[in-house]
Amino acid sequence: MARRGHVIDAIQYSNWTRQHFEEWRAGGLTAVGVTIAYHERARETLERLAAWNWRLREHADLIRPVRRGADLEAARAEARIGVLLGAQNCSPIDDDVGLVQVMADAGLKVMQLTYNNLSLIGAGCAELDDPGISRFGRAAIAEMNRAGMVIDLSHSAERTTLEAIALSRRPVAVTHANPRFFTDTPRHKSDRVLRALGESGGMLGFSLYPPHLPEGADTSLEAFTGMVARAAEIAGVDRLGIGSDMCRGWDGRTIDWMRNGRWRHVPEAERAEFAEMPWPSQPDWFRTPADTPNLATGLRARGFSAEEVAGLMGDNWARFLADALEPEA
Amino acid sequence: MARRGHVIDAIQYSNWTRQHFEEWRAGGLTAVGVTIAYHERARETLERLAAWNWRLREHADLIRPVRRGADLEAARAEARIGVLLGAQNCSPIDDDVGLVQVMADAGLKVMQLTYNNLSLIGAGCAELDDPGISRFGRAAIAEMNRAGMVIDLSHSAERTTLEAIALSRRPVAVTHANPRFFTDTPRHKSDRVLRALGESGGMLGFSLYPPHLPEGADTSLEAFTGMVARAAEIAGVDRLGIGSDMCRGWDGRTIDWMRNGRWRHVPEAERAEFAEMPWPSQPDWFRTPADTPNLATGLRARGFSAEEVAGLMGDNWARFLADALEPEA
Repeated sequence: MARRGHVIDAIQYSNWTRQHFEEWRAGGLTAVGVTIAYHERARETLERLAAWNWRLREHADLIRPVRRGADLEAARAEARIGVLLGAQNCSPIDDDVGLVQVMADAGLKVMQLTYNNLSLIGAGCAELDDPGISRFGRAAIAEMNRAGMVIDLSHSAERTTLEAIALSRRPVAVTHANPRFFTDTPRHKSDRVLRALGESGGMLGFSLYPPHLPEGADTSLEAFTGMVARAAEIAGVDRLGIGSDMCRGWDGRTIDWMRNGRWRHVPEAERAEFAEMPWPSQPDWFRTPADTPNLATGLRARGFSAEEVAGLMGDNWARFLADALEPEA
Repeated sequence: MARRGHVIDAIQYSNWTRQHFEEWRAGGLTAVGVTIAYHERARETLERLAAWNWRLREHADLIRPVRRGADLEAARAEARIGVLLGAQNCSPIDDDVGLVQVMADAGLKVMQLTYNNLSLIGAGCAELDDPGISRFGRAAIAEMNRAGMVIDLSHSAERTTLEAIALSRRPVAVTHANPRFFTDTPRHKSDRVLRALGESGGMLGFSLYPPHLPEGADTSLEAFTGMVARAAEIAGVDRLGIGSDMCRGWDGRTIDWMRNGRWRHVPEAERAEFAEMPWPSQPDWFRTPADTPNLATGLRARGFSAEEVAGLMGDNWARFLADALEPEA
């Protein structure tokens, strides 16, 4: 009997309620990566971890934690959705390389080296200049490799991204970004990055966040799967997966927090604009995680083989994570 | 072939260097509980955890972490000394019951509900009055029970201690205290507490900290083992073990920190007195952890059976911890 494949979305960030986990189940997901921190420092991250611990316990009939590769298999076997906790910035480790292991032990198993700005490790995609990976960054990368904490470069600038791929002893992830040939902004990834990811055994998760799609919510599924096909030629079809960046239940205040954190003062009038801003609409073929099967249908229609589709829908992430989450002996 | 018994010291706090781990090996210890925090709050505790993570890695030929019962067996099988991390106060969880699980995951598996003063949970033995276990304390006890974090009542006042024993769904520990019939101060445990511990399946670790012995460093091994014999009649011989409170490599400044933390201002002249104060001398039959076998010799001479001595030297702690460290399903 054929085993059901993994269906993995590498990143979502919703205003979590049980409804969202039911949507995961409706979409056939076997595991989801969730963001627990954008700008939170170590102390604040403890509260985010605690909140997820309660949530995992309260909805244990639907979801379970993923901290090691074996947890992905257990989740699938139990027909519960595995939840992998990650941060979109290196703020959770403050300036202390020793906190990599502490945070990994506490359940934070994925971490971006930067969000949009300069971090203590390197530069984000919106930064004025990109100095590459810092001295602290080199120590942090080595320690993340050792601890089995996945290095995520989704929001990092070009030089920082390429240096991190080269410096890391283990394959790294871009959990959520699209190729620049599809959406040409510094937030997305050059062919050079796609190639380096592919050659190093890394992974790219395609984003479905509307501002990451060339025509926003009007972008067609056909355009999306065409982008996947072209990226597969560059990075290799085994190096690609989903990282939808799906955000549910928020309004523009959350975009304000994501973009501005505490790094600059936001004038009151601008805050009010954010507060009134509606969340961007999703394409009609991916309105909620319950629509995840539409992606498989689209990929099949594009001409990918059944095995390739299974890989793109989750088996590629599962293979990558099975190794990447393991601490080194 | 008979298996070598466990030799467990439930609590030590030294200015750690490799020498101390070599003393553990010389003393035949299979596991040691170490204090990582006295007054440290959550954020500071992360640094203490990180420091121990590095230490465990740097001296991995001698020591290994103990987080679950199976780790105690693994340590013995590998001929490495298992290290169990604990706090002497509930300060590591701040005011957040959710941090019990986060700290347990990060490696803090033993926690006193109070040090000497009032905590958010209850009263310490030096406090002016003892209100028993607080509302937060009841939630924290339930959560520690669930997470498999050992409740330690060594420094707690009488009412707080008795209420904690009664409220806890799982047996609790007094890692380091002596009976009041041996050393009659509020820091030590009444017959009533000894009885309640015994009846509930808890454990008491006998302290060898000289101020906890009736004649300090001049207290004889015979007097010590006589105290063990009398305590065994009250609590049961299976409920007792060693919790030496051995501190190596410190001077009086550490006593200043332990006693005063940040809870009061210490005048400069008093600070100077602490700084010049030598650490209390140990009895000549327990100068360092390398002398641990002298305790077994003394207990045998006192008339305990070989099996009882094995229990007192570590098998009782091992049996208790094998259960107490496991999270509830």
